[in-house]
Amino acid sequence: MTDAGPTSTGVETSRVLSIDAMGGDNGPATVVAGLARFLKKKPGTPVILHGRSSELAPLLARHGLTDAVTLRDAADVVTMHDKPSHVVRHGKTTSMWSAIEAVRDNEAGVVVSCGNTGALMAMSMLRLRKLEGVNRPAIACLWPSRNRQGFNVMLDAGADIRADQDDLLIHALMGASYARTAFDLAQPRVGLLNVGTEEHKGRAELKVAHELIGTSADKGGFVYVGFVEGGDLPGDACDVIVTDGFTGNVALKTGEGIANLIADLLRDALRRTPLSMIGALLASGALRALKKRIDPRRVNGGVFLGLTRTVIKSHGSADETGVAAAIMLAHRLVDQGFSDKLAARLATALPHDADRTPPLTDGAQP
Amino acid sequence: MTDAGPTSTGVETSRVLSIDAMGGDNGPATVVAGLARFLKKKPGTPVILHGRSSELAPLLARHGLTDAVTLRDAADVVTMHDKPSHVVRHGKTTSMWSAIEAVRDNEAGVVVSCGNTGALMAMSMLRLRKLEGVNRPAIACLWPSRNRQGFNVMLDAGADIRADQDDLLIHALMGASYARTAFDLAQPRVGLLNVGTEEHKGRAELKVAHELIGTSADKGGFVYVGFVEGGDLPGDACDVIVTDGFTGNVALKTGEGIANLIADLLRDALRRTPLSMIGALLASGALRALKKRIDPRRVNGGVFLGLTRTVIKSHGSADETGVAAAIMLAHRLVDQGFSDKLAARLATALPHDADRTPPLTDGAQP
Repeated sequence: MTDAGPTSTGVETSRVLSIDAMGGDNGPATVVAGLARFLKKKPGTPVILHGRSSELAPLLARHGLTDAVTLRDAADVVTMHDKPSHVVRHGKTTSMWSAIEAVRDNEAGVVVSCGNTGALMAMSMLRLRKLEGVNRPAIACLWPSRNRQGFNVMLDAGADIRADQDDLLIHALMGASYARTAFDLAQPRVGLLNVGTEEHKGRAELKVAHELIGTSADKGGFVYVGFVEGGDLPGDACDVIVTDGFTGNVALKTGEGIANLIADLLRDALRRTPLSMIGALLASGALRALKKRIDPRRVNGGVFLGLTRTVIKSHGSADETGVAAAIMLAHRLVDQGFSDKLAARLATALPHDADRTPPLTDGAQP
Repeated sequence: MTDAGPTSTGVETSRVLSIDAMGGDNGPATVVAGLARFLKKKPGTPVILHGRSSELAPLLARHGLTDAVTLRDAADVVTMHDKPSHVVRHGKTTSMWSAIEAVRDNEAGVVVSCGNTGALMAMSMLRLRKLEGVNRPAIACLWPSRNRQGFNVMLDAGADIRADQDDLLIHALMGASYARTAFDLAQPRVGLLNVGTEEHKGRAELKVAHELIGTSADKGGFVYVGFVEGGDLPGDACDVIVTDGFTGNVALKTGEGIANLIADLLRDALRRTPLSMIGALLASGALRALKKRIDPRRVNGGVFLGLTRTVIKSHGSADETGVAAAIMLAHRLVDQGFSDKLAARLATALPHDADRTPPLTDGAQP
């Protein structure tokens, strides 16, 4: 184990993963277990792990990862209750800051953290900066869906509770870029989340965004399908669903809540009679495959889009499987050179400042 | 079959159901089939059915309901594409208008319609008027949940895309009243939907509503549990979830979409191998019970709260089961004298106009 950056070993630094081991609800043991699971599938992937060495060194040793992972000591931890504004000013000694700093210093290409979302976003915006043209970065997450690729992208899943029409346009461009990389789709289909598919429905900024996204589809390299509804999040009407971070966050947690309720009720139902128990045993292979298909932990990683480097936010309550999924996603994105592709797409497709729509004032809507 | 109102038969008019047979996606045949299913469970319930007599009379005859149901001819139909503003001005000859008018004229106690939500709300507000103190009526819907009663109430499910802090307070009072009647809960627990449970999270109006609802809990006869998240909609943290109609509508359709996706994937999984097919057969009783427990059609009826009379909006795409569930809900509410109870609760618990919080201006938030 060494404190030196992996550059000394000759690894291409943009492929190095910078992982914050602290700050999740389940503590560093879960993060290290998730990392171990990931490294079993992708051995040799270079990783810098940030946190209290005194806690992390024994955990790495237990998983036999002492030599495989570079440990970077950080004395403090951002908690779920810390306000982002406080952490940005006073958080320089935290593991989260250290994980971001490694990417800022070009020692690594991607950050992964289970910590406080607001703090991670605030720090990332301060230290990694926003891409040219981006006002509010967004969190993109994956939904199990009826589409061929099995997943849809939704953004914003909760980076910012507001989004005006220009933000929604940028969400569309970023989401399409992400879907292109993650799903290998040449022309992702983009929809704008609303309370109905009729053009006269919804908030004023949605009607303007509807026009903006429609006229930007060609340059953005996507197909715009128009307004979509909540039911299309797990549907096949489009591959990318654009919304503000308040609505997106509620929808995401609602979907997970319903999936978990159904899973629990199904388990209870199958245990109710001897006959149903035998039935469940015979069908156990099929049930396991279904569980894997819709497991929220498998799609657990959210990606911060709109920064100069990629940041992956895992659920605070992620377990080992969830952490491993988030790290796997990080690996995939750096492997594909996603950050550079996204920056290039925004530079091409965004209207110049002079062409932007003026801010919408209340009642000015036709 | 007669065109005379049921008052001529001596029935208590507040218990009469006024049903719009037209305007749903599946046409009047589905509405009449749903009504027939309801009347099998509650024979003798007085019903006025509104729509084109030439279409409805044969349908009623086919179900043997010619004498059980009073038919009220209405030549026109509100379509899903009609704008509410247009319908309010030009809709006097529609079945929806006729159904509302029967309640306005005290021939019936409750309206049921599968038609255009915006039009139904606009007409209802015009003809039935809002309760004293209510600015924006709301649609309350039921979620399958982990609570003992098996369901949670959420409002607003989409009556109005906006809600300020005073509207959210009134939603809390109305939702608690509805849960008290529907679930027989002495002290329903109310939560306010947000993107986190921490007090510093969320939009400005949510922070003000958080205070208002907390201080009104005693007079409103409910327990306020504070902020809740999307995962609590099907959870057991509270019985009533308060939100604006945009967020609520997206959450509702998201939950239904996820439930339908899982049901379809489960069916596919169980058909995949001979072993899983046998297993599914043995467990079929358990699976049927589960399906019934979470079937969105069973909780299909939304209730307009905040008007002088109760209006039930069924899904536009409701099938026979969904229509029957909405009519059953209407029956339960008039049976319990719900409208009068709600009016009395609002009169007691709402602050007088002079005590209302002033409108929130941007940036005025501490």
